[in-house]
Amino acid sequence: MGKEQKRIAVYPGTFDPVTNGHLDVLQRACHLFDEVIVAIAVNANKYPIFSQTERKALVETNVRGLPNVKVEMFDGLTVNFAKKMRACAIIRGLRAVSDFEYEFQMAQMNRHLDEDIETIFLMPSQDHFYTSSKLIKSVSEFSVEDVAAFVPENVKKALRTHFAKARK
Amino acid sequence: MGKEQKRIAVYPGTFDPVTNGHLDVLQRACHLFDEVIVAIAVNANKYPIFSQTERKALVETNVRGLPNVKVEMFDGLTVNFAKKMRACAIIRGLRAVSDFEYEFQMAQMNRHLDEDIETIFLMPSQDHFYTSSKLIKSVSEFSVEDVAAFVPENVKKALRTHFAKARK
Amino acid sequence: MGKEQKRIAVYPGTFDPVTNGHLDVLQRACHLFDEVIVAIAVNANKYPIFSQTERKALVETNVRGLPNVKVEMFDGLTVNFAKKMRACAIIRGLRAVSDFEYEFQMAQMNRHLDEDIETIFLMPSQDHFYTSSKLIKSVSEFSVEDVAAFVPENVKKALRTHFAKARK
Amino acid sequence: MGKEQKRIAVYPGTFDPVTNGHLDVLQRACHLFDEVIVAIAVNANKYPIFSQTERKALVETNVRGLPNVKVEMFDGLTVNFAKKMRACAIIRGLRAVSDFEYEFQMAQMNRHLDEDIETIFLMPSQDHFYTSSKLIKSVSEFSVEDVAAFVPENVKKALRTHFAKARK
Amino acid sequence: MGKEQKRIAVYPGTFDPVTNGHLDVLQRACHLFDEVIVAIAVNANKYPIFSQTERKALVETNVRGLPNVKVEMFDGLTVNFAKKMRACAIIRGLRAVSDFEYEFQMAQMNRHLDEDIETIFLMPSQDHFYTSSKLIKSVSEFSVEDVAAFVPENVKKALRTHFAKARK
Amino acid sequence: MGKEQKRIAVYPGTFDPVTNGHLDVLQRACHLFDEVIVAIAVNANKYPIFSQTERKALVETNVRGLPNVKVEMFDGLTVNFAKKMRACAIIRGLRAVSDFEYEFQMAQMNRHLDEDIETIFLMPSQDHFYTSSKLIKSVSEFSVEDVAAFVPENVKKALRTHFAKARK
Repeated sequence: MGKEQKRIAVYPGTFDPVTNGHLDVLQRACHLFDEVIVAIAVNANKYPIFSQTERKALVETNVRGLPNVKVEMFDGLTVNFAKKMRACAIIRGLRAVSDFEYEFQMAQMNRHLDEDIETIFLMPSQDHFYTSSKLIKSVSEFSVEDVAAFVPENVKKALRTHFAKARK
Repeated sequence: MGKEQKRIAVYPGTFDPVTNGHLDVLQRACHLFDEVIVAIAVNANKYPIFSQTERKALVETNVRGLPNVKVEMFDGLTVNFAKKMRACAIIRGLRAVSDFEYEFQMAQMNRHLDEDIETIFLMPSQDHFYTSSKLIKSVSEFSVEDVAAFVPENVKKALRTHFAKARK
Repeated sequence: MGKEQKRIAVYPGTFDPVTNGHLDVLQRACHLFDEVIVAIAVNANKYPIFSQTERKALVETNVRGLPNVKVEMFDGLTVNFAKKMRACAIIRGLRAVSDFEYEFQMAQMNRHLDEDIETIFLMPSQDHFYTSSKLIKSVSEFSVEDVAAFVPENVKKALRTHFAKARK
Repeated sequence: MGKEQKRIAVYPGTFDPVTNGHLDVLQRACHLFDEVIVAIAVNANKYPIFSQTERKALVETNVRGLPNVKVEMFDGLTVNFAKKMRACAIIRGLRAVSDFEYEFQMAQMNRHLDEDIETIFLMPSQDHFYTSSKLIKSVSEFSVEDVAAFVPENVKKALRTHFAKARK
Repeated sequence: MGKEQKRIAVYPGTFDPVTNGHLDVLQRACHLFDEVIVAIAVNANKYPIFSQTERKALVETNVRGLPNVKVEMFDGLTVNFAKKMRACAIIRGLRAVSDFEYEFQMAQMNRHLDEDIETIFLMPSQDHFYTSSKLIKSVSEFSVEDVAAFVPENVKKALRTHFAKARK
Repeated sequence: MGKEQKRIAVYPGTFDPVTNGHLDVLQRACHLFDEVIVAIAVNANKYPIFSQTERKALVETNVRGLPNVKVEMFDGLTVNFAKKMRACAIIRGLRAVSDFEYEFQMAQMNRHLDEDIETIFLMPSQDHFYTSSKLIKSVSEFSVEDVAAFVPENVKKALRTHFAKARK
């Protein structure tokens, strides 16, 4: 692969909401690729608590300092979006044992769908190895202050607003 | 156990829809038992996309070449169906790490329910180790062509019909 | 820590319903702490089949022989309830491979929320290593007799009543 | 496969020494096949504490009640021995999480070496799920009485003799 | 169990050498028991790089601030040592996926050997979840400075002395 | 990171001998980095069957078609070698469940030793997911022909020569 061609990676997810763990993986990816596209899945059948626009905005505020990061929304298969973006890689943050199977299934399927796009796994910092958006939401239901260490400032506010409304 | 008695195995599942991975496991089981009964769970609380009749028909077309295979529907506990069929074994295809616990739980429970019926685990071909009905459905939602390598011809058609309707 | 202070542990869960496995872990915990509080989660978003009052009553009948056990209901974060109870430990029964990640996530989160409360993992007896409330309910749907070995007498009756009603 | 042909399975291992867990798996396999051959690996580079003749004798005494079991020694690849015995299956007792990878590697390699011989995994009784020859030997070093529940009578004697000698 | 009886726990290991991860688990255990005995296995067939006296001394210096900790050497089965010490618990630090099987095997065996002694699993701080004595030794072979974050001061010195000698 | 700087990755291992699985991972890495350095560990305390010169030669013959690959030997810590090579990444091929812990330990340690070098995990093709140098050697001991599908031509010859000598 020639030097003249930019190497682009896609970092897909629901980001409902983005966590410090996501941002940690993202920063690491920035050193490895010329451009990293945070790809926010629109059609998540996981019933996100934040709308796609909110999720995008929450990420964007936090990546302003990273010149080679773009944030996009996508619909459909990740690998098709990656192809459209001319990406050579899909980035996944490795977390814990029960993730592995599904991650590998997806990675094998994605490779089947496009042999030229590689799934690469990065390890988040130890501080984030055990946090997930899901856990953050279930703690926030009772106390947003308690997850302050795991999410950026704007997400903390958004969680507070969301759960204040939910309680009414 | 005398030679005069047929050894029957039951291969239970939702089969929504049957995949090449299922058929691979089935073929392997055919060499080990006198008769293998594909047992399609009727009452699956997993909201199948295909009806029980459709799921049965999709399997049947693909087992015509296997003389010692029968396809049945069942309701209730697998082990009770196996007992009724006078089976000595329940067949499970091993897939991935996160499956194991539940598989072992079920196998221990089944053994508790009937000590004479053994759960045996077979390994699908490497080509099918990472595919599942669930993954196939989630890819098919966007593009049925992309899963053509993982399902038999009639399932491909059925998926195309199903998702064409769903899109309307 | 001085001898004069009681060491209290909290054993949280949905207990829908309590199983012999839970009671086995509980008995083990009783030897390690001055007081063990069975903490029944009220707000379980798992749609329990028994009401919180029923679940509490089913536990209570079975812990009468254990002088240092109390049964309480709680709402909100486990760790907050533990703090309120002045507990030094949260008890978890270890089961199987796919549990681990979530258990560790929760344990790390709980430690973050209160560094003074330790999560400790106990291993149930081998007889209970593969049973869960979920599996018991799914077998009971068809035959309560078949789970008699895994639940105490009053739970067996309650399951019978519940599923008799459900069938009507 | 015609009824007229016997279905033979091979159950390979070092059997240093045979445990109740091995015998449990063996009994289960006897119900599934016309003949089961316990295949004792001669060239184990694991430095067995019992010679191949001793290991074979310790197994033989314990399988007298099983009419369709034979005990053999073998050298070289398991799959080649299985082929020579005209076996259609290699039996493995599933134990615990860290075994899986190597088991699957071996099973895939064996399938590559002979596509007609299937590796099947059986689950030992819960009582034996966590015992291994290695653990039995390391406890026996201090007290043979303590492993009496996990090995047959003749193995207990052999362990006592072995470790009595070793201590001198 | 009456308040009048002290609750003692044993924390066994090779401690070759003790790490910050060990000390972290030890401190947590101190809050849960009246007395914690660090039990250094004498007969480790792992060829320790430090003698039993050295390993004991390296631990002792680091537990001076913990009034309810004692350091002892032991030979033979852990559970027998625990019984002799009148302990009600054996403490294990949970680390990573491949440890689990062996840990559970040992815990089940220990329970078989003495039903009254419970094995309890504690989780070290995230900072120590991925360090082990083995990894520390293999890095120290090249550069002791690089493991300074993972071991106490006296262990760092001992490693430096050991590997300086080894290099000659 | 500016376009003007080459992105270099190191792919470390014992390569005793190199397999098709290694070469598969290597080819994937070549698309992601400007230069990939195969780093052959000299001081492997695993008693390699091939000398470091042999292992290097066996790799070199197979990477002639990959213009951005270099083969080097190294001694000491991988991360120090990576730093010396000005690499931004260390590449690891993911294989199976029991590898994970040690891989993550190493990755965390390497990150501790140099925060600027990222460990990235790639998944080999399904055909190679279950093969390892160790398994290849243990099959080759009996029949080199049987591993022909898993190693390149020159490795097959080298294995044949090695085991012919060993048998004398």
